Amino acid sequence: MARNQPTAAVLLIGDELLSGRTRDINLQQIAQYLAPLGIPVRESRTVPDVEAEIVAAVNELRVKYTYVFTTGGIGPTHDDITADAIAAAFGVGISEHPETTAMLAARYAAMNTEYTPARRRMARLPHGSSPIANPVSGAPGFQTGNVFTLAGVPQVARAMLEDVGPRLETGAVVHKVTIRGVGLREGDIAEPLGALAKEIPDVAFGSYPWFRSLGDNGVHLVASTIREDLVEEVAAKLEAIIAETGVRPERLEDANS
Amino acid sequence: MARNQPTAAVLLIGDELLSGRTRDINLQQIAQYLAPLGIPVRESRTVPDVEAEIVAAVNELRVKYTYVFTTGGIGPTHDDITADAIAAAFGVGISEHPETTAMLAARYAAMNTEYTPARRRMARLPHGSSPIANPVSGAPGFQTGNVFTLAGVPQVARAMLEDVGPRLETGAVVHKVTIRGVGLREGDIAEPLGALAKEIPDVAFGSYPWFRSLGDNGVHLVASTIREDLVEEVAAKLEAIIAETGVRPERLEDANS
Repeated sequence: MARNQPTAAVLLIGDELLSGRTRDINLQQIAQYLAPLGIPVRESRTVPDVEAEIVAAVNELRVKYTYVFTTGGIGPTHDDITADAIAAAFGVGISEHPETTAMLAARYAAMNTEYTPARRRMARLPHGSSPIANPVSGAPGFQTGNVFTLAGVPQVARAMLEDVGPRLETGAVVHKVTIRGVGLREGDIAEPLGALAKEIPDVAFGSYPWFRSLGDNGVHLVASTIREDLVEEVAAKLEAIIAETGVRPERLEDANS
Repeated sequence: MARNQPTAAVLLIGDELLSGRTRDINLQQIAQYLAPLGIPVRESRTVPDVEAEIVAAVNELRVKYTYVFTTGGIGPTHDDITADAIAAAFGVGISEHPETTAMLAARYAAMNTEYTPARRRMARLPHGSSPIANPVSGAPGFQTGNVFTLAGVPQVARAMLEDVGPRLETGAVVHKVTIRGVGLREGDIAEPLGALAKEIPDVAFGSYPWFRSLGDNGVHLVASTIREDLVEEVAAKLEAIIAETGVRPERLEDANS
């Protein structure tokens, strides 16, 4: 890429994601939030609620990518160990953050709810961290160096991203176009698509088949590039490749992700 | 755990999972398939369609876990590089597997479809691999040592698991029970839940809040254990913890996952 491009990794924390109980959506929504900022997600990992596993993953990822986003494990219960793990990963202490605990105390007082030791755990931040606002349920996330620790509840994680965005260095935005062929088979377009990918190395071409049932199957062809000037040209070429097979190409509306 | 417990890792391969285009479901369905076999998934990673990234992840995971399941990148197009990456990870060659290419040739002949060089790519297996049957669309996955390479299309990946299951050493099944409290807040049950977790170390307790909107929020408490004899006891204790707050506990039907 032409300019210095920031990159990101996403670390999903939680036994429930590995047991099959919960289907993650945070990777997708973080990637979709970062795409228009020109920050591609390059890797994701999912680890259980085990401190050593979290620490190892954080320390591998934070030196390899510009930014790391973690989700999960910052609530008040015994299995919420992410804050301690981040502190351990950075080799710093952890204690109640004065402004955060004052904010939570006032919030619970307004709800006539006791500010218990368990709830106070949510005010503990690794030393050197700054809070990330949580307009949904109060208890903040936090930024520690280049690591952003978000909630696991998708609605809360999404809201926290709004407070993270302004802190990020942006990069070149990747523009995308998607052309769909209903009933198309990948084998019908593999050769000309591969030739096109070689011909235009500034564009990444992806081929994504779907198969829900006979008749509800086909292929999405996706072109991705930071060269906005190439988008219309490659869209036309993908349409021609699909049309050549006798299938009608359909261009889909596409956001930056 | 009392007996030798097999473990698994899942490696999800594909740019589309990191760009935000596609929300993965393969981790969940693989975990749900393995749970009744007593094979817990301990880690998952998502990497782009970049050979060096795939090779590095496969080689880290295959020594750390009993089994590795990969998804994605085994179609006929230029971005389908998983088979080559697996061969590189194992340091073996790759070429057309005779039985597989004969099967595909016959399949395409029956469809009056040309068996092109692109389609022949799907018959290439790393040396020493055995195919994994694909009853949906023909082109097989493959097993290389303890690594099982599945398709990315969820319906195909799911079908392939049926051919993988009989090859796996099974372990002790984890039994689960889930009790829900609608409107419950984690802070209301954190102390007694933490005490219960300390009291019964043979059971893992998870607390999973949801928050879709005010009124559509609450907490799921999940107990997981290979000690089936403990399930009813801990279910009653979780119900009592929730009832103590004034919220009505609801026990959910739960499979082994």
